[in-house]
Amino acid sequence: MVLTVRAVACLCLCLTVCQVRGSHIPAEMNRTIQNLLQHYRIPREERYNRKPVFSREPLTGKTESQRVFMGGVLETYEKILGLMLNQLPTPSPVTNQLPNAGAANDAETGGNEDLRPKLNFILKKVHDLRKNEYQEQERLLQNLDALKNIKMENNVVQSKALWELPWLYEEASSLSKAHRQERRRRQAWRAKSHARG
Amino acid sequence: MVLTVRAVACLCLCLTVCQVRGSHIPAEMNRTIQNLLQHYRIPREERYNRKPVFSREPLTGKTESQRVFMGGVLETYEKILGLMLNQLPTPSPVTNQLPNAGAANDAETGGNEDLRPKLNFILKKVHDLRKNEYQEQERLLQNLDALKNIKMENNVVQSKALWELPWLYEEASSLSKAHRQERRRRQAWRAKSHARG
Repeated sequence: MVLTVRAVACLCLCLTVCQVRGSHIPAEMNRTIQNLLQHYRIPREERYNRKPVFSREPLTGKTESQRVFMGGVLETYEKILGLMLNQLPTPSPVTNQLPNAGAANDAETGGNEDLRPKLNFILKKVHDLRKNEYQEQERLLQNLDALKNIKMENNVVQSKALWELPWLYEEASSLSKAHRQERRRRQAWRAKSHARG
Repeated sequence: MVLTVRAVACLCLCLTVCQVRGSHIPAEMNRTIQNLLQHYRIPREERYNRKPVFSREPLTGKTESQRVFMGGVLETYEKILGLMLNQLPTPSPVTNQLPNAGAANDAETGGNEDLRPKLNFILKKVHDLRKNEYQEQERLLQNLDALKNIKMENNVVQSKALWELPWLYEEASSLSKAHRQERRRRQAWRAKSHARG
């Protein structure tokens, strides 16, 4: 009897944990995505070809690195969804005049007019998450983008970069030295805790 | 007397700390950069126009973000130095036949033949620092670059991205939730330490 109660309690706990973790994606968002996928259909061999658009590998490293990469993923999603919206045909004048009739028709046929609010809804969700939780990462990504726009073949830039190198090289060395010390400190602390445990 | 000894001891300590921090850029490297700057001259108003090639602002945030940005800076330096090497005129056949005479001449005139080994030396220094200390950041930057190369207008990519979104959105939410919890934990720990102190 006790065992059964325990098993039920464990199951409830597991379900609750899963629910809490699963609660991050709102039900309406999930439903809208599944709905959109009805329209954006591709052959099964392309869907399941084990070549995801977004690699999962960067999401196994350090939390801070994961967050930087995730900031980039969310930024990419905004671009993709923006493109998908741009690729939709412009609403026809008839539909504009008769919104209810158009909506009813779209609901039946899964037409393009129905896609726009759905895509906008998903875009807003992604945008809000990025703006509210990934602002710091956004700034970093902008700074990294700025590096790509440096006019490297310009002789003034080359000279100035050379001039800035001693300070930056020293800073880069200091940063890695501090990082190594921090790692050693953590390892020692973990070893201590392990020995105590 | 005691005060004088203390002051001298403090001065010595400061100098040692500065020396240790300053020791990150090897003397030969610094000398070579100053030497190269004799060749890569630009007007003073361009040098000191308060528009550095590399912004210092990203180097004031979190250590991990600083390291990611620094990985990008070192990568950019490798590209700039590679370009500077490519822009050098190819060695003349006469100099190739008479290396000693050529070297003497270059040393006197600061000619191009002298620049190549100097640039190569600096390039190696930057490359080694990046390879030895910024490998993880290099991988992250590669993964971020891969995001830029996603064929976003392709309908298969759009559909697959939509398909992958629920998992990624949940992961992004979980990461930011974990980040917030960690921050709160740290704040509580600091407040506790402060109260004890």
